[in-house]
Amino acid sequence: MLIRTADPSTAVPVTMDGAKGVSMQVMVGQSDEAPNFAMRHFVVVSGGHTPHHSHPYEHEVYIVEGELEAECGGVTKTVRAGDTMYVPSKAVHQFRNTSESQARFLCMVPIASDCGQQVPGS
Amino acid sequence: MLIRTADPSTAVPVTMDGAKGVSMQVMVGQSDEAPNFAMRHFVVVSGGHTPHHSHPYEHEVYIVEGELEAECGGVTKTVRAGDTMYVPSKAVHQFRNTSESQARFLCMVPIASDCGQQVPGS
Repeated sequence: MLIRTADPSTAVPVTMDGAKGVSMQVMVGQSDEAPNFAMRHFVVVSGGHTPHHSHPYEHEVYIVEGELEAECGGVTKTVRAGDTMYVPSKAVHQFRNTSESQARFLCMVPIASDCGQQVPGS
Repeated sequence: MLIRTADPSTAVPVTMDGAKGVSMQVMVGQSDEAPNFAMRHFVVVSGGHTPHHSHPYEHEVYIVEGELEAECGGVTKTVRAGDTMYVPSKAVHQFRNTSESQARFLCMVPIASDCGQQVPGS
């Protein structure tokens, strides 16, 4: 029975170009033999942000703690704990923590993208 | 830009056989054109439970609030806010709220199961 607890202290820093102050923990993923999609838990420190980028697969995001500026497809809105945001495939997007507190969110991705390639971090 | 807030007051009671005191809100799903998987937000009142059942697709669950007895494949453990649980395809499972407080969790499912059928509630 696979139970895993979100633990910011064991999250791994995201070293992707454009990421700052972001760390990730895979909650359920390929290594758990999840066949279709993966769940990752992200921590963004105050002043941190995810890369400003796009890719050929979607995100489903749920904000667990704090608030973030969320940019998607040229629109920017504030999302807070309890909000879900959908990032369609190929949309340029970024999450920025402009607050003074830590923010945390879940980000789900498919295991494979359109072309059958493994999705990074899944 | 699709942003949706988890709101127990608008969640729809789950009327499936074996469910008691459970309501559901689709956070991202087929009607949003999500291509691969759906995110649903469940509320379980004190004394409530999900059906004791199995189906040919997996769950990825994240406990948002409270605690639940989680049974999966004949094993029962307690899961709490911050815990993820993976329910493999075909495993018999149930979530029971034996606490005195409301519990809430996210449950992600694929849009389609093995045979290409639409997954209920996706």
